[in-house]
Amino acid sequence: MNQINHQVRLAARPDGAVKPTDWARTEEAVPAPAAGQIVVKVLYLSLDPAMRGWMNDSKASYIPPVGLGEVMRALAVGRVVASNNPGFTVGEHVTGLLGAQEYAVTDGAGLFKVDPRLAPLPVYLGTLGMPGLTGYFGLQDVGKPNAGDTVVVSGAAGAVGSVVGQVARIKGARVVGIAGGADKCRYLVEELGFDAAIDYKRENVAEALARHCPKGIDVFFDNVGGDILDAALTRLARGARVVICGAISQYNNTTPVKGPANYLSLLVQRATMTGIVVSDYYPRAGQAMMEMGGWIRAGKLKTREDIVHGLDKFPKAFDMLFSGANHGKLVLQVAAD
Amino acid sequence: MNQINHQVRLAARPDGAVKPTDWARTEEAVPAPAAGQIVVKVLYLSLDPAMRGWMNDSKASYIPPVGLGEVMRALAVGRVVASNNPGFTVGEHVTGLLGAQEYAVTDGAGLFKVDPRLAPLPVYLGTLGMPGLTGYFGLQDVGKPNAGDTVVVSGAAGAVGSVVGQVARIKGARVVGIAGGADKCRYLVEELGFDAAIDYKRENVAEALARHCPKGIDVFFDNVGGDILDAALTRLARGARVVICGAISQYNNTTPVKGPANYLSLLVQRATMTGIVVSDYYPRAGQAMMEMGGWIRAGKLKTREDIVHGLDKFPKAFDMLFSGANHGKLVLQVAAD
Repeated sequence: MNQINHQVRLAARPDGAVKPTDWARTEEAVPAPAAGQIVVKVLYLSLDPAMRGWMNDSKASYIPPVGLGEVMRALAVGRVVASNNPGFTVGEHVTGLLGAQEYAVTDGAGLFKVDPRLAPLPVYLGTLGMPGLTGYFGLQDVGKPNAGDTVVVSGAAGAVGSVVGQVARIKGARVVGIAGGADKCRYLVEELGFDAAIDYKRENVAEALARHCPKGIDVFFDNVGGDILDAALTRLARGARVVICGAISQYNNTTPVKGPANYLSLLVQRATMTGIVVSDYYPRAGQAMMEMGGWIRAGKLKTREDIVHGLDKFPKAFDMLFSGANHGKLVLQVAAD
Repeated sequence: MNQINHQVRLAARPDGAVKPTDWARTEEAVPAPAAGQIVVKVLYLSLDPAMRGWMNDSKASYIPPVGLGEVMRALAVGRVVASNNPGFTVGEHVTGLLGAQEYAVTDGAGLFKVDPRLAPLPVYLGTLGMPGLTGYFGLQDVGKPNAGDTVVVSGAAGAVGSVVGQVARIKGARVVGIAGGADKCRYLVEELGFDAAIDYKRENVAEALARHCPKGIDVFFDNVGGDILDAALTRLARGARVVICGAISQYNNTTPVKGPANYLSLLVQRATMTGIVVSDYYPRAGQAMMEMGGWIRAGKLKTREDIVHGLDKFPKAFDMLFSGANHGKLVLQVAAD
């Protein structure tokens, strides 16, 4: 193919926040696909908080760590540009773990075909991708909101949280979102139809939860951990369900994770805290994508992507996840389709 | 009746460990029972870790705090010595919240009749009382052990823990108990039939759990919180159930409760942490007591009580709960039957 493949590799395991020197840029020729292989041109890369965990040398995770020197693991959407595999045709679009690079050579295992006529490609990395499925299944299968319940979601303006809140509304719940900054809070209430939003950067979260959840919190969907999780625990309603999806406030810690000091509220309120991992639900992904696709077309489920351009911006875009600088699902456009 | 009623009252709200000056001794004449009332002579008082929580001025608990100057709330077994209530006959034995005193004057609400011919009276404060029901329902309804599962219980030699472990064995699980001291550990394995015991005072709990639970922990029943909860979280099996029953290691804290720093294992292992309060199960208590009574008679469920004598020993006995000095269910005998 005589193409150059630029790549971002894990050069060092970060201690705390990721530094520029933890990444290495490499380039190599794109090989011709062997029998059974395809070459996918990466168009959009997904930036997700979970990636920070994949960089740690942790034995006890749900997925092995990225090896030092390996291309950084990343979800992506791309287009098949060469195929030696009868299951894939040049020109088809696929999504999966293509990695932080311009071209992926793969046997196609774990890839799903996507249709750019049904939704713009970046949506397959957000609402119709891993984050959206996380919110859809985590809320419904574990949070189990009833009509009239009060659902609170942290990281509410993010790719997962915005789906959680909107699906909870569709199911008839009252929804309160916690996000950082007036812009995000306005977006939640005015554009996504949340009943209320709490700006954790300016408000006392515990007081605001008391005000917005006078009957307590029936479902707390947590993406952030730390002080916000602790504040929510103090406001649980009897029989509440706490869904542990992530803890972005703790991922860059150099000190031990801050455990939820108020966890004994689980006892007082006979409440449950349950962790979820989206891959458990992949067998039902097709059905979920169809339902969410219908909601998107009906205007009930809104998507928003924040698109950064160029693989060379990968480290900078990655940092945006942790500063909360992105508005909507953070996507890196690697190439035009 | 011309009887003197000696009492132990809450004199001050403790800050950290309970001091002798937090208690006050009072005495007053036992009044004749008014219409609808009975007088119960208290025979055995129960000492339970939960009592420490009742002494705090906490709004967010499952039961209101004991008021300053009030007789300390306590479960007890007694005998009806005077009755102006057609539901109770002099000579009958009853159990309920009779308080830390020699005589209780009550309308009988919340009292249950017990039969000293079926089990010794102190057993109605332990295995056939609140702690036993806590273990029976918390393990089975929330922990849901399957045959072959590995069940780990902390505070295993205590009134709740010893029931949890033995019921788990009856249900076909492998059982590992965590307790303090070689005597208690020997008791768990040699007398109660636990598969293994970990002495948290001498062993590294995380390492010992790794050794005794090679396939991970399916059910962790926690009575102690703190470092032991954190150690157990690192060893959860996929889909584990963590039952939060109490946190005796944290009740005397003057600093904030130590939250479980390893709570993200819930996510990695798709595990659940659920709090329980025994009173939710009282409607099914009769059935549970019948089944446990049968196990006791069949020699499958062993009970052990550690009996301290004299109401004047109440403060000292209370302290034994937190030093772990008691072996078996801690009971204060107030009077002979």
